[in-house]
Amino acid sequence: MEQKTHRCESDKQDLNNRLKKIEGQVRGLQKMIEDDRYCIDVLVQISAVTAGLKRVGFQLMESHTQHCVADAIKSGDGEDSIEELMRVIKQFSKS
Amino acid sequence: MEQKTHRCESDKQDLNNRLKKIEGQVRGLQKMIEDDRYCIDVLVQISAVTAGLKRVGFQLMESHTQHCVADAIKSGDGEDSIEELMRVIKQFSKS
Amino acid sequence: MEQKTHRCESDKQDLNNRLKKIEGQVRGLQKMIEDDRYCIDVLVQISAVTAGLKRVGFQLMESHTQHCVADAIKSGDGEDSIEELMRVIKQFSKS
Amino acid sequence: MEQKTHRCESDKQDLNNRLKKIEGQVRGLQKMIEDDRYCIDVLVQISAVTAGLKRVGFQLMESHTQHCVADAIKSGDGEDSIEELMRVIKQFSKS
Repeated sequence: MEQKTHRCESDKQDLNNRLKKIEGQVRGLQKMIEDDRYCIDVLVQISAVTAGLKRVGFQLMESHTQHCVADAIKSGDGEDSIEELMRVIKQFSKS
Repeated sequence: MEQKTHRCESDKQDLNNRLKKIEGQVRGLQKMIEDDRYCIDVLVQISAVTAGLKRVGFQLMESHTQHCVADAIKSGDGEDSIEELMRVIKQFSKS
Repeated sequence: MEQKTHRCESDKQDLNNRLKKIEGQVRGLQKMIEDDRYCIDVLVQISAVTAGLKRVGFQLMESHTQHCVADAIKSGDGEDSIEELMRVIKQFSKS
Repeated sequence: MEQKTHRCESDKQDLNNRLKKIEGQVRGLQKMIEDDRYCIDVLVQISAVTAGLKRVGFQLMESHTQHCVADAIKSGDGEDSIEELMRVIKQFSKS
């Protein structure tokens, strides 16, 4: 069975608002390409979108650590949970 | 007057196909949040989307260097063009 | 009073062996510059040294989370400890 | 035969001064480990050293582009030189 994370409604709303903004920015990038906008301007905008996505990731990572990882530690099986977190942090830092 | 970059149709098509795929992945992320999918799975997917965006950036950067920067160098004013490129590379590597 | 982290001798030894290797690589970079070695070769080597330093950082981050952060969580004040960890993860991912 | 890059004395001096400073910082990290300094303080310092190394890399990359790549472009074989540069930029951004 698939593992789930229960998120409160306000967190879900906040994360999805940010993701909707990012979706709009990715559509904006397509328009920039169609309009032959200057490469450097497109690259600056790609950096902004990437940074926005990473901020969503860090927000999720923090709340995962405050809730899921902290709960695992309290119930005595934090080790696996921390290893899993570290793996995703490393992957994240290379993307 | 705004600076423009003329891109050939096949390049524009290719870049926009990648960006459309990324737009779909960002919508997929919203669905993952709504469905309470496990944080680590969402984070792995965010890494994949970020990496995809960076690949679009690198493709653009390479073609910008092969065309715009190379033309500037040939006509004797490459220095500014290279400085501008380096600035965006640095910004990119921090995003 | 300054905060301290008690590390076991084998961890200290392992971290310092890696750092000594990195110190040697940084000296090797100076020799490459003196010997007029090709820029791209120097850049590849700088990437290797940076990646090595980051690996030391991740090792430290994991053991910090397994020990200091886990202890803080168990004694009920994990929140600050996790915020501090997240700040350093963000800074790390931009360096 | 190995490829070489001729650098002027002032550039070599500048690069090696920065690398000597970085070598000293790596020795400082070893002392921090021996002295049981707090993990987060060590991690902040590792970030600083990594950022310093990347700055040396960007300086080298800029001068490589201003000289070697520009010369290759002027003599009509810029394509390979730019591909090689892009490969190292990508590797750099993942380290």
